[in-house]
Amino acid sequence: MRYSLLAGGKRVRPALCLAACELVGGNDSMAMPAACAVEMIHTMSLIHDDLPCMDNDDLRRGKPTNHIVFGEDVAVLAGDALLAFAFEHIAVSTLNVSSARIVRAVGELAKAIGAEGLVAGQVVDINSEGSSEVDLEKLEFIHIHKTAKLLEGAVVLGAILGGGTDEEVEKLRKYARGIGLLFQVVDDILDVTKSSQELGKTAGKDLVADKVTYPKLLGIEKSREFAEQLNKEAQEQLAGFDPEKAAPLIALANYIAYRQN
Amino acid sequence: MRYSLLAGGKRVRPALCLAACELVGGNDSMAMPAACAVEMIHTMSLIHDDLPCMDNDDLRRGKPTNHIVFGEDVAVLAGDALLAFAFEHIAVSTLNVSSARIVRAVGELAKAIGAEGLVAGQVVDINSEGSSEVDLEKLEFIHIHKTAKLLEGAVVLGAILGGGTDEEVEKLRKYARGIGLLFQVVDDILDVTKSSQELGKTAGKDLVADKVTYPKLLGIEKSREFAEQLNKEAQEQLAGFDPEKAAPLIALANYIAYRQN
Repeated sequence: MRYSLLAGGKRVRPALCLAACELVGGNDSMAMPAACAVEMIHTMSLIHDDLPCMDNDDLRRGKPTNHIVFGEDVAVLAGDALLAFAFEHIAVSTLNVSSARIVRAVGELAKAIGAEGLVAGQVVDINSEGSSEVDLEKLEFIHIHKTAKLLEGAVVLGAILGGGTDEEVEKLRKYARGIGLLFQVVDDILDVTKSSQELGKTAGKDLVADKVTYPKLLGIEKSREFAEQLNKEAQEQLAGFDPEKAAPLIALANYIAYRQN
Repeated sequence: MRYSLLAGGKRVRPALCLAACELVGGNDSMAMPAACAVEMIHTMSLIHDDLPCMDNDDLRRGKPTNHIVFGEDVAVLAGDALLAFAFEHIAVSTLNVSSARIVRAVGELAKAIGAEGLVAGQVVDINSEGSSEVDLEKLEFIHIHKTAKLLEGAVVLGAILGGGTDEEVEKLRKYARGIGLLFQVVDDILDVTKSSQELGKTAGKDLVADKVTYPKLLGIEKSREFAEQLNKEAQEQLAGFDPEKAAPLIALANYIAYRQN
């Protein structure tokens, strides 16, 4: 659990969670357990996705993947335990937030993971591999579920735990959906334009696995335009908030859009 | 998810959860989502334990295991989604219970699963396979974590959600720990004394895997005596409760002790 959770990574989801909490007037201690929990969920999804029966990847964040180091059995279990510990951490360690908001946060996080979230995306992704019948709609379904749902969860949890109104929570949900898709479009572009060393993970593996990606369907240039558009629309959701407090979320959107690995 | 969750099974954990809820004065609707959630967790642990990289079992409840039917990748993901959905169901569907009690229930259930619960037991179990150095203490650690923790979770969740006092919750926790260990001692005995057909799962597999079991360490007769003692001590925890409402929990202890499959 520690090996994969503390292996580095960009910590985009925790940063989003804390920024959303502060944007709606909370202080970051209210959302810190949730921010950690979201990173645990992200890590568990990476551990399980890397398994031989899934993407069969042996490099992640520049290090051997969990099952290479600890064996497949322990890798499955480490993922399970991280998934459970995420909920334990929110339930036990969230302070100065009403129980009603904590219960809402638990429900939102759980929904981001399961058959309407990460898992849905991964199942459709697996079933689509090597298929020539993946169109833009299906590709978007995969990315919204595999990537955007958990980013949405991170932002929504932060907004709920920070005391946001329903309207604020929904605006931030739209922002998160936009940058979630943005994140994956950029990932697809990086996979075909960067080396393994630059990425800290195996490059070009989408091509090798014959995966449908945005560059494959739209070409690199149109993919970059689509990324620009998603970034712009996401940032428009932040218009009604205090500009100073919204600055980190704008910066994060730009970071996601312009990152190099 | 449906294939394994609705494949039958004894539903011991949900029954315990509802009975504990009623024992402390709740009505069973308060604990119904939690009872279902505990069964989802149990099912997810079976799906993952049956994987080729773990116990590599192809028969469960008289049917092919999940990965035999749907493939290893989907089996891993079905387990993940059931784990998440358990928490979603408690958070979203529990009615007429204070949010504070729901948050406590989430924390208790999560702790029963992770590195202090099911997963701890499975990891030590895997590492002990084929080892001649497993003594009674280690065997008890494995069973307390692999089996008793989730039964404890079921009972404690029912007691919390039903409005039990801290003292009532702790008495029921002790009862559950006792019958949790009892459950596994009886399982070990059945594995060496019954056929696959009688059990609805592969019999004699502990012997094949050279697993340390109670019958192996104590012999069949002493294992049966130990089961009797655990049953008696568990039932003693129920002495202070309304005998009529305690009757289902006494019956469940006896059912576990004297079951034939």
